[in-house]
Amino acid sequence: MTEAAANIGVVGLAVMGSNLARNLASREGNTVAVHNRSRSKTDELVADHPEAGFIPSFSYEEFAASLTVPRTAVIMVKAGRATDAVIDALVEVFEPGDIIVDGGNSLFTDTIRREKAVRETGINFVGMGVSGGEEGALLGPSLMPGGSDASWVTLGPILKSIAAVAEGEPCVTHVGHDGAGHFVKMVHNGIEYADMQLIAEAYDLIRRGTGKTPAEIADVFAEWNTGELESYLIEITAEVLRQVDAETGEPLVDVILDQAGAKGTGAWTVQTALSLGVPVSGIAEATFARSLSSHPEQRAVSRDLPGPVEGLNVEDADAFIEQVRLALYASKIVAYSQGFDEIRAGAAEYGWTIDLGAVSKIWRGGCIIRAQFLNRIADAYDAEPGLPVLLTAPYFVEALGRAQEAWRAIVQQSAAAGIPAPAFSSSLAYYDGLRAERLPAALIQGQRDFFGAHTYKRIDKDGTFHTLWSGDRTEVEAEDTH
Amino acid sequence: MTEAAANIGVVGLAVMGSNLARNLASREGNTVAVHNRSRSKTDELVADHPEAGFIPSFSYEEFAASLTVPRTAVIMVKAGRATDAVIDALVEVFEPGDIIVDGGNSLFTDTIRREKAVRETGINFVGMGVSGGEEGALLGPSLMPGGSDASWVTLGPILKSIAAVAEGEPCVTHVGHDGAGHFVKMVHNGIEYADMQLIAEAYDLIRRGTGKTPAEIADVFAEWNTGELESYLIEITAEVLRQVDAETGEPLVDVILDQAGAKGTGAWTVQTALSLGVPVSGIAEATFARSLSSHPEQRAVSRDLPGPVEGLNVEDADAFIEQVRLALYASKIVAYSQGFDEIRAGAAEYGWTIDLGAVSKIWRGGCIIRAQFLNRIADAYDAEPGLPVLLTAPYFVEALGRAQEAWRAIVQQSAAAGIPAPAFSSSLAYYDGLRAERLPAALIQGQRDFFGAHTYKRIDKDGTFHTLWSGDRTEVEAEDTH
Repeated sequence: MTEAAANIGVVGLAVMGSNLARNLASREGNTVAVHNRSRSKTDELVADHPEAGFIPSFSYEEFAASLTVPRTAVIMVKAGRATDAVIDALVEVFEPGDIIVDGGNSLFTDTIRREKAVRETGINFVGMGVSGGEEGALLGPSLMPGGSDASWVTLGPILKSIAAVAEGEPCVTHVGHDGAGHFVKMVHNGIEYADMQLIAEAYDLIRRGTGKTPAEIADVFAEWNTGELESYLIEITAEVLRQVDAETGEPLVDVILDQAGAKGTGAWTVQTALSLGVPVSGIAEATFARSLSSHPEQRAVSRDLPGPVEGLNVEDADAFIEQVRLALYASKIVAYSQGFDEIRAGAAEYGWTIDLGAVSKIWRGGCIIRAQFLNRIADAYDAEPGLPVLLTAPYFVEALGRAQEAWRAIVQQSAAAGIPAPAFSSSLAYYDGLRAERLPAALIQGQRDFFGAHTYKRIDKDGTFHTLWSGDRTEVEAEDTH
Repeated sequence: MTEAAANIGVVGLAVMGSNLARNLASREGNTVAVHNRSRSKTDELVADHPEAGFIPSFSYEEFAASLTVPRTAVIMVKAGRATDAVIDALVEVFEPGDIIVDGGNSLFTDTIRREKAVRETGINFVGMGVSGGEEGALLGPSLMPGGSDASWVTLGPILKSIAAVAEGEPCVTHVGHDGAGHFVKMVHNGIEYADMQLIAEAYDLIRRGTGKTPAEIADVFAEWNTGELESYLIEITAEVLRQVDAETGEPLVDVILDQAGAKGTGAWTVQTALSLGVPVSGIAEATFARSLSSHPEQRAVSRDLPGPVEGLNVEDADAFIEQVRLALYASKIVAYSQGFDEIRAGAAEYGWTIDLGAVSKIWRGGCIIRAQFLNRIADAYDAEPGLPVLLTAPYFVEALGRAQEAWRAIVQQSAAAGIPAPAFSSSLAYYDGLRAERLPAALIQGQRDFFGAHTYKRIDKDGTFHTLWSGDRTEVEAEDTH
């Protein structure tokens, strides 16, 4: 019989799982049990990392027996059916009070379903978002666990030991119950899509506006990374732009096919926002920009569509670059504001208590969107936890006020020159929509009442009304059912 | 025993069902059986419309007995569980070869599921989109039936007898198998969202740019309705803008609360497009504009956000209005092109054979988006059925070439003046994205490869590649699994 000696186990030893297991094993006080469907991966990991002191097991029974109570296991397998299969196997060998953690990229509604099913066995189920990729898993990821308060008592110290550290604080918090962790991870990825698209638009405008080479633009991004835009994505943009293709001697970015892939979390974020009634237009435009780029057959027949006679006409390159920087910063504020709006709405819909300031803090390290900027978000929610729109916090109002003229100029120039800037322009339209005293939504309500008797409300009194459009056009009070 | 005398039946006698039943009864050769869960609605309909010669029934057995073989029944109840309940009841009393039609606003994936289940009983199941609202149901809707070829043999003549007629042709076609009809109806509604938002933006810009009153702008829309924009939505916009509130003497549009409602089909269209990888950014922005408008608590705290010092500065009102008209027309072409792109992609994904030209023709009458313009779409698909992007058809290229300068001017002016025009600007960005020789998607692929080893393709050779970013930065050929 295996001796119960490990305080934590990992199931699924592909790169993410192996790295997370090594990270766990490297921290004081952890002994790590490991298990994989195929024996070879387990053997390999144990042989390659004797320093880790892994306790291997080759059946779920053995795996369970190697864990101290409460048994705690992190599943790192492909989201979907593979995850369900491992959960089922662990439920068979675990006991009430034990903890099963799904560290994969699961859709939060799957996590809600699984948590409910597993809870009936008395076992705790925790869906946990893990951000930071392979390197983050090994050296310190940003961790977004959901699940019960009871499981957090055991998990908290272990997760704090392996998470990235930002300004002295571990990048992990108990996000909320059941699917809250995976929900927040999903929105993190949606924001990441927006951030990357905004950076891509900034690069494109600078390149087409100033004729600078990718290497020169790398310098611009490196410079930006010393200021308020300081972030991992800005940093690696400089690295990518500076890279030269060994084969052709061309900048790598010019050799890469301009068709962006996606693995679905951006789409999930937007689909969920649509169900919640939250306008995440920046994330949507970023997701659509990727799909547009990936239709070469459509782009091939569209290249000769009529465009403006003149391209960008930039006289002062430095001034233009500063305008682009401000447009990027303002649009980024919008993207994060929309993302946090979705988390707020998701929490309300699913009954989670989510501390938005804590979420922004755990994103400061380990994850792809880590940035200085997140401290400002944390400050905003510290000052006003119930903030209805993030971008109305004083710091952001000041920044937007400083940026908006440049932002408008850049959107205008891209429209005039025929350079697509869907995320810049959409963010600006969202911002101006929020600001508007009156929106033409009133006309839409009038149209809907006309063709579908959908009714409308009035600005001057309560109730729901309908105009008898195909009758004498008087107004009647209607039941509020449409 | 009831005598089998009706060739068609309707289940569900709320307004839409009653009106469709009356429409059916009014056509030569039809005898209509009617049934409703509660007896009173049936009695009322029969009593109110003796001219219709309805055959009422008060149980499903009686309803089935009143229908000639193959029994054909249209369900007009609320989408969701109510629809499932009626289908189950009809399956009990119908026989192989009979036809059950769901004329509700069902999600197409529900229709696919139901068709598969019902088909196993030998009964035909047809999901049918019905557009045109209450008036359309009574006088002639646009009908979008899916389902089997066999059911179309029986259904076709009946549906042709009640559909709207446009240029001599009934607005109905057999769209495709199983869920194709409801899919196409969903996209119809998505396009409707975009069209309405574009009209709302046009109205808002004219109002804020020229200071014209709603009644004066009604004249503009009425004028537009005599040209290439001729359509039901433009026509009713003039009607709504001309309406004066009896209570206050103000234009009704100024008394209506500017918070637009939605019943979900816009969101479905965008959610489905995201799953299909089709960029329907115009429909998305329209859907988000409605949700933005419906968050008064967010708008209330955002009114003082910094905006431009000056508003729109229009010197020549007529010239400005013409620019707005062209921007509206160009953006509308984009919205329809995106919608048809979604239908094309949906057909490929679900194995439907959909004649896109035929779809555009059945939308020419009866439905909310009926417009002159649809003839141009039909022409485009007649000339090239496999057109990869609708807006590249010669007619639209000419129109876009004529409009694009004005379109760009309007997007610039709205950005400068702080007037939200999300659908105008998003449509333009999509258009410029399609046109682009190179997109900065290449940078996004570089970033993805950097932080997640997601790999990239090259422009100069086949294969999938990865740069060893945290190693010596050489490039390696990778397996195409990411």
